[in-house]
Amino acid sequence: MLNVCLVGAGRIGRIHAANLAAHPDARLAAVVDVNADAAAALAGQYGAATRSPDRAFDEDPLDAVIIASSTDTHHDLVQASAARGLGILCEKPLDLDLERACASVQVAAEAGVPLYVGFNRRFDPSFRRVYDTVRSGDLGDIEVISITSRDPAPPPADYVARSGGLFRDMMIHDLDMALWLLGDQPTSVFATGACLVDPAIGEAGDVDTATVVLQTSSGVQCQVTNSRRCSYGYDQRLEVFCASGLARAGNDAATRVDIGTADGFLSEPALPFFLERYERAYRLQLDAFIAALGGAPEGPASGEEALQSLRLAAAAERSLSSGRFESPGE
Amino acid sequence: MLNVCLVGAGRIGRIHAANLAAHPDARLAAVVDVNADAAAALAGQYGAATRSPDRAFDEDPLDAVIIASSTDTHHDLVQASAARGLGILCEKPLDLDLERACASVQVAAEAGVPLYVGFNRRFDPSFRRVYDTVRSGDLGDIEVISITSRDPAPPPADYVARSGGLFRDMMIHDLDMALWLLGDQPTSVFATGACLVDPAIGEAGDVDTATVVLQTSSGVQCQVTNSRRCSYGYDQRLEVFCASGLARAGNDAATRVDIGTADGFLSEPALPFFLERYERAYRLQLDAFIAALGGAPEGPASGEEALQSLRLAAAAERSLSSGRFESPGE
Amino acid sequence: MLNVCLVGAGRIGRIHAANLAAHPDARLAAVVDVNADAAAALAGQYGAATRSPDRAFDEDPLDAVIIASSTDTHHDLVQASAARGLGILCEKPLDLDLERACASVQVAAEAGVPLYVGFNRRFDPSFRRVYDTVRSGDLGDIEVISITSRDPAPPPADYVARSGGLFRDMMIHDLDMALWLLGDQPTSVFATGACLVDPAIGEAGDVDTATVVLQTSSGVQCQVTNSRRCSYGYDQRLEVFCASGLARAGNDAATRVDIGTADGFLSEPALPFFLERYERAYRLQLDAFIAALGGAPEGPASGEEALQSLRLAAAAERSLSSGRFESPGE
Amino acid sequence: MLNVCLVGAGRIGRIHAANLAAHPDARLAAVVDVNADAAAALAGQYGAATRSPDRAFDEDPLDAVIIASSTDTHHDLVQASAARGLGILCEKPLDLDLERACASVQVAAEAGVPLYVGFNRRFDPSFRRVYDTVRSGDLGDIEVISITSRDPAPPPADYVARSGGLFRDMMIHDLDMALWLLGDQPTSVFATGACLVDPAIGEAGDVDTATVVLQTSSGVQCQVTNSRRCSYGYDQRLEVFCASGLARAGNDAATRVDIGTADGFLSEPALPFFLERYERAYRLQLDAFIAALGGAPEGPASGEEALQSLRLAAAAERSLSSGRFESPGE
Repeated sequence: MLNVCLVGAGRIGRIHAANLAAHPDARLAAVVDVNADAAAALAGQYGAATRSPDRAFDEDPLDAVIIASSTDTHHDLVQASAARGLGILCEKPLDLDLERACASVQVAAEAGVPLYVGFNRRFDPSFRRVYDTVRSGDLGDIEVISITSRDPAPPPADYVARSGGLFRDMMIHDLDMALWLLGDQPTSVFATGACLVDPAIGEAGDVDTATVVLQTSSGVQCQVTNSRRCSYGYDQRLEVFCASGLARAGNDAATRVDIGTADGFLSEPALPFFLERYERAYRLQLDAFIAALGGAPEGPASGEEALQSLRLAAAAERSLSSGRFESPGE
Repeated sequence: MLNVCLVGAGRIGRIHAANLAAHPDARLAAVVDVNADAAAALAGQYGAATRSPDRAFDEDPLDAVIIASSTDTHHDLVQASAARGLGILCEKPLDLDLERACASVQVAAEAGVPLYVGFNRRFDPSFRRVYDTVRSGDLGDIEVISITSRDPAPPPADYVARSGGLFRDMMIHDLDMALWLLGDQPTSVFATGACLVDPAIGEAGDVDTATVVLQTSSGVQCQVTNSRRCSYGYDQRLEVFCASGLARAGNDAATRVDIGTADGFLSEPALPFFLERYERAYRLQLDAFIAALGGAPEGPASGEEALQSLRLAAAAERSLSSGRFESPGE
Repeated sequence: MLNVCLVGAGRIGRIHAANLAAHPDARLAAVVDVNADAAAALAGQYGAATRSPDRAFDEDPLDAVIIASSTDTHHDLVQASAARGLGILCEKPLDLDLERACASVQVAAEAGVPLYVGFNRRFDPSFRRVYDTVRSGDLGDIEVISITSRDPAPPPADYVARSGGLFRDMMIHDLDMALWLLGDQPTSVFATGACLVDPAIGEAGDVDTATVVLQTSSGVQCQVTNSRRCSYGYDQRLEVFCASGLARAGNDAATRVDIGTADGFLSEPALPFFLERYERAYRLQLDAFIAALGGAPEGPASGEEALQSLRLAAAAERSLSSGRFESPGE
Repeated sequence: MLNVCLVGAGRIGRIHAANLAAHPDARLAAVVDVNADAAAALAGQYGAATRSPDRAFDEDPLDAVIIASSTDTHHDLVQASAARGLGILCEKPLDLDLERACASVQVAAEAGVPLYVGFNRRFDPSFRRVYDTVRSGDLGDIEVISITSRDPAPPPADYVARSGGLFRDMMIHDLDMALWLLGDQPTSVFATGACLVDPAIGEAGDVDTATVVLQTSSGVQCQVTNSRRCSYGYDQRLEVFCASGLARAGNDAATRVDIGTADGFLSEPALPFFLERYERAYRLQLDAFIAALGGAPEGPASGEEALQSLRLAAAAERSLSSGRFESPGE
């Protein structure tokens, strides 16, 4: 039974807490949040202790930590967790700054603690099925990947300002998906974008609608389209075109109902947002984290993989300025 | 090149004329209709001759006839065609009266002319695919057939009055479909129905909404649902449930488009009616008729098969009155 | 906080236990099972007490009971629960015998305790969406209901022998669905069936493939098709054809993936069985039970409604013998 | 009745001939082909005359010409047709060379004859529905267009060599689609590509797998993906993402059948190639051509529009070399 400390009692923290409470091999030992009331409420619901942020890992017999607090706290928490020897699952991004993110990966490596980053979409059953199908080799080599990813509504302007921008905040999930599927580093990144949804996003220096093209050294191409707003729900789709077949994941919906009238057949919109779409992915990611700490060969995305997607996001930003293919570097 | 006389220049006659005109092995030799203007117009469009009904088959070097005139003329036309030795494709029904229909089949048999009846749905590519799949044996034995068949709008009351009633006029297509798929005669027929769509239909002594259950001696079951009105187009669907799989044909639509909005995804209604849905089936049925006259082993539904579906319809009518399983007899 | 005693620590009991444990307004107070080990294991997982069957309701401050033990125990447990004044959610069927089931409903009524029966499909989100759409009146009056319900694999022969037969054991769910949707009692029931799947079922005097037609006094028709075996998963579909539209619920699947190759596009089979398909329905049914005990106007299916579906099942059995429409009586 | 001369008795010429023969307002007056036998066979089938290429327009009372001969003949045929004052429908491309294509447009303009180019996909019912939906304004402004276009199998190497390359030969259809939907000229074009399908294509200096991104001055983005090979049929799909909705056209298939087994549900692959997918589009394009010559306001793509797509293709070629956004110029 692994004792897990949860840092962050917000929206995502609550998902982790519920999944930990139901997990046969893990225990929600403590909840930490700068908002002591939120921590107490969540801890109370599952019979866990609370700890203040500055003494988060002091006392308990802890094995692991899940970091689901605000991005600017990740770096210090990873340092502290590594110092305590805890297995780490950190929500993305490790850090908006590539250098600090690298430092986090390094400190975990030096401490010999496993560091995983919460790219939960790898655990979505539909995306996983696509991945497994492609990896089985039954469809031949990958030639083109198409990723569609659209949020239901733009975030508040103040969120945008500190988000790191669309490429590091939103598209980074799609870049991780591309890396995971490709099993190969793109050598060229092209990006374009515009502010079509909300002028406040443009005023904050960001785009809200973007297209990115990745290409590997062998010529495999990947296109990603992002929008900060989508009328028909949370649009999360994936197509992998291979030499002898296509593997494709569509959106999920609340029901399997359609209604036929003279207008045609109306089926449900896509699920509203990530809490609904990735409910199962969060659970399966936690399973993988716990299993990996217990020695399973495969876990969530590694810290090193998180750096790769961050490098792609940074290259996309450069391309948005330069109007040309950029190399993500190493 | 087969010389074909077309009797009937109405809606279905025009389809046959266009298909004959485009056929590489057949020629529209003459058009016959009680409405001389209609005959002339259709004949003119394709460079064919016209003949008056009483001299329909007198003069020309004819090989075959397509009978697409009103039902009450079918019997005499079959007699005359058989006497001339013409191959016959007669629109369904041969006759509303089972005895007269039997006489038509017999006279053709005695004259040694092939007599086919226009159960065109056998040539719908989707239904044909289901048939071929089921007949291949890949899915194991048939256990349950489900047929959904709904017209877009009720016919005029005066049509209903002379239609022979829902079972002989409308459901007979579905009964032929069941017979064709089963390759076996049902031994029991149950029917129920009501007048839910148009009171005028009830006043004419008919039902507009009906459910029929067929069962074979081996226990295979077939259910048919009919309605004289359907808001979302012409509903023509089929499911064949077999021991190791399901073969299913859905409706066709005008486009492959769907529109996603906050309400969900709206796709097209079913095609409006039989002219659209069975456009291809009419063409393929004509191909089969011409090929069969040329010696191909398989043609459209035979006269004998048409009698079988008429017997099922008659049994359904008896069941509607008796409230019990009826035998279709022989 | 409602204290709930769970009777039955089997497959369905474990679902109820997990849902109770996660419910904000209820508490799993005690687990009862003839298998003391099973009871102890389940109770231990959620910090509940165990009670022996003969002292199930003796000591605790209990508010409600969920009866998920074998069918032959339901009658006595309902009696005992009613005597203790507990709100009751009893898995279907109340009893295989109509008279004993009536007695259970009566004793609960006399004791003034609410008695609900676990027709969980009413809480399936897809079926619920169909129900809400139909009840909204937007599609006009119901004219025809079509229910397809097929289990993935036949049960063991000894289960069949004590199951009460296909109509009381399996189709009763579909009959409840019909009653719920119709909001009206059918006045006529027709049934046919055969043993096509497993001869052992026929030897036990039962059928494994059945078709039932219900009709109300206003002429609305409902057809149900059942099979004890289905190659492509647990087939649970519903169509409600109304005067101005169709509301339709399809099967759910494990993912939204399809794979395109030269053979075509392959999507997932239906979910394997009821634990997967109705996972959410069990949870929502429990919510409704707890809410109804707290005064909400609508709860799960009532005992009286359970009697209605049992009467329909009994009428179907008579029809299977008689080959004619039977009245379900009152 | 318009007298139309058809130049080219090949695969596409035969489609035009059949559609002309069935058209109520047009007549296939003459067929011209360098292969006199092919011309005679096609002309004979529809009762048309034949003309030798050097005297194509000499004698007949002609109103219009359809140019479906090899690309290198287009320029001279347009000149000759314009000189005769014929309305022109020329298969794409006008010419592989932008300067010569411009000259063709100019000569037609100077002669005052209407010149249309066969971008037949504008008449595909599904794409037309998307166009109409988007143009209705119901979905708000266009933000992102995604076009997927994959041929079933790579062309022979010698075809590739004289094809003008993927961008001018194949993607030009998609570029026209983008222009038509956008109703606006992209100001930037980015292209990447590789040879992943057939090394012979690479040896001929071309790519077989390409991704293009277009952007307009207002920031609207369009991505196109092309492959010269597709296992699951001819992949022709379109999505237009707008401020308040998505309009999407999927592939068509031979039937509406799916087969359910333990593996899942298998539906049909996409139609095999353009003759099947765009059968209806060719017919509707001809209708529009005939109607436009008769004064209808809208016809097929104009010569000027064809130049625009050719400029985009040329810009894509430059971008493929430069690795950066290129301007299509004017």
